[in-house]
Amino acid sequence: MKKQLDLEAIFKYQRKFASDREWEQFHTPKNLAMALSVEASELLEIFQWLTPEQSKNIEKNTDLMKSVKDEVSDTLYYLLRMTDLLNIDLEKALSNKMAENEKKYPVEKSKGIAKKYNQL
Amino acid sequence: MKKQLDLEAIFKYQRKFASDREWEQFHTPKNLAMALSVEASELLEIFQWLTPEQSKNIEKNTDLMKSVKDEVSDTLYYLLRMTDLLNIDLEKALSNKMAENEKKYPVEKSKGIAKKYNQL
Amino acid sequence: MKKQLDLEAIFKYQRKFASDREWEQFHTPKNLAMALSVEASELLEIFQWLTPEQSKNIEKNTDLMKSVKDEVSDTLYYLLRMTDLLNIDLEKALSNKMAENEKKYPVEKSKGIAKKYNQL
Amino acid sequence: MKKQLDLEAIFKYQRKFASDREWEQFHTPKNLAMALSVEASELLEIFQWLTPEQSKNIEKNTDLMKSVKDEVSDTLYYLLRMTDLLNIDLEKALSNKMAENEKKYPVEKSKGIAKKYNQL
Repeated sequence: MKKQLDLEAIFKYQRKFASDREWEQFHTPKNLAMALSVEASELLEIFQWLTPEQSKNIEKNTDLMKSVKDEVSDTLYYLLRMTDLLNIDLEKALSNKMAENEKKYPVEKSKGIAKKYNQL
Repeated sequence: MKKQLDLEAIFKYQRKFASDREWEQFHTPKNLAMALSVEASELLEIFQWLTPEQSKNIEKNTDLMKSVKDEVSDTLYYLLRMTDLLNIDLEKALSNKMAENEKKYPVEKSKGIAKKYNQL
Repeated sequence: MKKQLDLEAIFKYQRKFASDREWEQFHTPKNLAMALSVEASELLEIFQWLTPEQSKNIEKNTDLMKSVKDEVSDTLYYLLRMTDLLNIDLEKALSNKMAENEKKYPVEKSKGIAKKYNQL
Repeated sequence: MKKQLDLEAIFKYQRKFASDREWEQFHTPKNLAMALSVEASELLEIFQWLTPEQSKNIEKNTDLMKSVKDEVSDTLYYLLRMTDLLNIDLEKALSNKMAENEKKYPVEKSKGIAKKYNQL
């Protein structure tokens, strides 16, 4: 099984969902950036008081995992809606950023170290 | 052209990137949720002082759009890394959430209204 | 009437509140930074879909203002708890930062312009 | 020494700082909520990859503590600016919220447990 996200199908679904509800008026890039950040924080909230170990074992907790999946989906939803409205080529943007990160974080300098590139 | 995200290829890349740098130790689900939220906020920062109109026209500003693409990519990067580590079936999670949203926000009740489902 | 926040009294209250519930174990600076960010996002959520004008008139909406006051308080609560645990002299830290901001944003360069200091 | 925050003096300073730079136009409650959330995330970023233990010992690291103080101050700055513009009685709002939290989290039910009140 190939794991793929069919962006075009999702964009199409989102456009109809927003259009049916006359929600395009709310979907400015600014508002979508807010919504994306709010959903990412709802994901964060789940992990707020967990120890690192508890967070690693979260898969065993069906209720928490349902919440994680919901919030990951909500975050992705707004990320993709913004991607569509701003005509971003997501695959290209991501692979460009990955290439930049390889330069910013050369293996020999960043091995085992969680520092920002400008502090390496 | 079909716009698709090849999740399996991205996961594979991310695993090697983290492994080469011995960064798996930092990638607890808790820390990844933090990183995801931090990147979403860096995206938010770009739109912070823009008017709704300026945010709609952001595509005309090449510098700002480069930043938007970078931050969208960083956000997606951590979202997918968490997806991989927690074995989430992202396509399924997203389509489940979409189905829930259709029930939460029936067209007749939510038309033109940006309220949370529990306030409709 | 002088508007003042009696930090010492709040710290004392918070210490007892956490101690009574045996919550000190959860209040690492890392977890408090997460909680602070989560509460700030709950405040953000209230404004998410409002127009600039609607946000300016939010005082007229008693229900929304109750939520705003609650989330502002929750955000402040964690900010002060961290301040106490890390022994930060908050008044001094704030006035130092204000002095820095005056240098970063000289009036003549930043008048009417909402740009970050390094882009002025 | 009494640790107090003189809110009136800070509000006055902030009004002049914004007025001198003609920044009142940017300071809608919506934009201030964004700025507050962005600053809280910059604080979060400092703790992102730290272990709980490292975060507890952050006081020993002068550079990181300088950053913590800066970001705590920036967060507080926007929180107070919003408080002033929305005419919130901060001391009252905070003590109201504390009273609510005592009811939501009775000692006997929440001792040693970091769960949200609706899951207790």
